[in-house]
Amino acid sequence: MVNRIIVGNSYIHEFSFIQDDVNNFAQASGDTNPIHLDEEYARNTIFKRTIIHGFLGGSVFSKVFGTIFPGKGTIYLKQDMTFLKPMFTGINYKATFEVKEIDILKNRAIVVTNISDKDELIIKGEALIKHPSIY
Amino acid sequence: MVNRIIVGNSYIHEFSFIQDDVNNFAQASGDTNPIHLDEEYARNTIFKRTIIHGFLGGSVFSKVFGTIFPGKGTIYLKQDMTFLKPMFTGINYKATFEVKEIDILKNRAIVVTNISDKDELIIKGEALIKHPSIY
Repeated sequence: MVNRIIVGNSYIHEFSFIQDDVNNFAQASGDTNPIHLDEEYARNTIFKRTIIHGFLGGSVFSKVFGTIFPGKGTIYLKQDMTFLKPMFTGINYKATFEVKEIDILKNRAIVVTNISDKDELIIKGEALIKHPSIY
Repeated sequence: MVNRIIVGNSYIHEFSFIQDDVNNFAQASGDTNPIHLDEEYARNTIFKRTIIHGFLGGSVFSKVFGTIFPGKGTIYLKQDMTFLKPMFTGINYKATFEVKEIDILKNRAIVVTNISDKDELIIKGEALIKHPSIY
């Protein structure tokens, strides 16, 4: 099974965001910081253009755990994220999931979760998940 | 200044989500796990009803840092989250931000970030942020 959580197994997921996603996230979360929404405001910041909310970028971890690797039935217990670089709309990012440890008694796994753009690391993190297929 | 990041200072923010927020987040993130969207599916899980995405719940940290405490100009460097209990729509949650350490040379602060429902801790976490007002 390709999506089986086994130590050393990994999964790669490519994704990108459009401004509509950013606007939807701003509305859902209430995070209306203009750095994410206002191109004119963003031009005068160190980023020079609007950036994606870090939480929207990191939500790809939630998406993959909940829908693909391992998928439906995942219970999310922990997520650490270090935001190393800003993320932008219209860029193809790569999320990498590498199983580091499993606890067969508790059906839990520690998974290293990274986002990169080509070879540059953008978000690095680690997750703890629980799923009946982890044993 | 009430929103000044000083060690020992804290900020409390009350919030709640509605299903429209959850749907918007599902669309923005691509996380369409039915546990968040399908009441019928959710009834047969241990949660008995749909739950909010952990990342949507945690996004209140991003909202408060980016818009209130300390506000616009915040650069988000790190966020750890432990999801202790599920979150639901229509519940009034409390997010608590407590400044633990500041680095005056780097304009950075470590802030303890928790979400609770009455006295029950729902998400516990810690953030690292940078803002020009931290000195």
